[in-house]
Amino acid sequence: MTTIKSDDKRIAIIGLGLLGGSLGMALRNGTWHRSGWARKAETRNWAIANDVIEETSDDVDEILKKADLTVLCLPIPAIKTFIEKHAAAWRSGSIVTDVGSVKQSIVEHAEPLLQPRGVHFVGSHPMAGTEKSGHEAAFPTLYKNAESFVTRTENTDPDAFNTIIEFWRGIGVKPVELEVEEHDKLVASTSHLLHLLALALTQTALDCPPEQQQQRYSGCATGFRDTSRIASSSPRMWREIIENNQASVLITIKEFEKRWKHLREIIESGNFDEFEKEFAHGKELRDQWVKYKKW
Amino acid sequence: MTTIKSDDKRIAIIGLGLLGGSLGMALRNGTWHRSGWARKAETRNWAIANDVIEETSDDVDEILKKADLTVLCLPIPAIKTFIEKHAAAWRSGSIVTDVGSVKQSIVEHAEPLLQPRGVHFVGSHPMAGTEKSGHEAAFPTLYKNAESFVTRTENTDPDAFNTIIEFWRGIGVKPVELEVEEHDKLVASTSHLLHLLALALTQTALDCPPEQQQQRYSGCATGFRDTSRIASSSPRMWREIIENNQASVLITIKEFEKRWKHLREIIESGNFDEFEKEFAHGKELRDQWVKYKKW
Repeated sequence: MTTIKSDDKRIAIIGLGLLGGSLGMALRNGTWHRSGWARKAETRNWAIANDVIEETSDDVDEILKKADLTVLCLPIPAIKTFIEKHAAAWRSGSIVTDVGSVKQSIVEHAEPLLQPRGVHFVGSHPMAGTEKSGHEAAFPTLYKNAESFVTRTENTDPDAFNTIIEFWRGIGVKPVELEVEEHDKLVASTSHLLHLLALALTQTALDCPPEQQQQRYSGCATGFRDTSRIASSSPRMWREIIENNQASVLITIKEFEKRWKHLREIIESGNFDEFEKEFAHGKELRDQWVKYKKW
Repeated sequence: MTTIKSDDKRIAIIGLGLLGGSLGMALRNGTWHRSGWARKAETRNWAIANDVIEETSDDVDEILKKADLTVLCLPIPAIKTFIEKHAAAWRSGSIVTDVGSVKQSIVEHAEPLLQPRGVHFVGSHPMAGTEKSGHEAAFPTLYKNAESFVTRTENTDPDAFNTIIEFWRGIGVKPVELEVEEHDKLVASTSHLLHLLALALTQTALDCPPEQQQQRYSGCATGFRDTSRIASSSPRMWREIIENNQASVLITIKEFEKRWKHLREIIESGNFDEFEKEFAHGKELRDQWVKYKKW
């Protein structure tokens, strides 16, 4: 039995930074009893004082024991070690999900540790975030209109899977089902690549001799602000994401380089009719996506 | 005598799209008498009806004749042909500037046509814009907190140059002086490159087999929205910009590729400590710039 009774269902939010803190805020006035935990006592106190969670404990196992659903809002390596250390705390039938930006390495780690204990792991990845991190950056509408990937393996318990689907729906997030391997390839091209590009373009625009800096600062305007925004993300977090999705990221890098080479060649050869066509095609692709998102 | 008397100074805004329309709006309640012209009568009517300009004419030469200062807010090739066709309309002592994203090809074209007639050309490039175009996209605060390059050549009239500097200051834009050649190299790395990258990343993320499209749409979230925003710009306009700055753009492309190659190699080799260092360096560069801009 993995279905949670709605009258007394308890959620445990582990990690109360941007994603975990915002999740607790999004669940305010809902049907879940919100418990939570963060490594630092000061973050736990902040979360209680600001109605991010209703209950906490110095001993995280106390929180896990009572949880019907646990959402691990930790960095990728911390998700793995947390499950290792605390696998015994969850009771059989409990459901665990996470918000990590990669899924395969997490799910492969979690399933063998939890499944033998009757604890159901379903990997999630809400497409929500900003370039900021930490609980100070949390806000109640972070998940508004977001979509969340909910991943499946051959071991996934169907009821647990449905519970996670409904959980995301409950806070206005559109769940998108897919296989774990598919997920990691997909986000390599829709998210991970972009962070590498934002980094490289920031370096190209701003890493210059000191005497050029003032002019470069003036030359970088709103276009730079937006294309480079995610370069202000956490270096540690992005190291962990790329490290845990190396193979798919390298495939996407190749795909990007093919397209980049074509653009460079048409500029080199002065074929600006072709350049205009390519630009129009990119604009059309993006404008269609904007329509879909209704942002 | 190039100084304009403040009691009866007349500005002519030629082209009333995003940049020209927004300029007219920014000059409301100021000391300039605002005249203007656009190719389409319907745009001219819109501009009069919405207090973007106070005066227009079917015959643009009538507008130019009376202008103390003319701001050409047209696409790059149109700026050049406009000056060719209408050089005789300006009176001696009149000052002409523009808002084109490249300067060398414009200034080299304008100076020999205007200087013999005593008309002073000073190339400007306000770092303001959005991915939209046309007068419908114009808004009064487009130039707010922007910086504008004001370019100099060995032929530049110092008084005319100062008038342009003060003109931008008058609408709250910070003028930044530099040589024409410097300008084109600079914006290749702070603006033109970014448009090429936004295009290539949009294609990589969204140009896929139809059966993958739905998942790609879901995988593209706020990070994609911002890094790709300028890929929704006008293909014609960006063709013209890149075409008119080909040499500098190709130099910047090489600079980007050097940095990109380094990032790819450290990911390939699994040197994620180095990757984290690079990311931290990029973040620091961007965060410093954000502080400078106070946005």
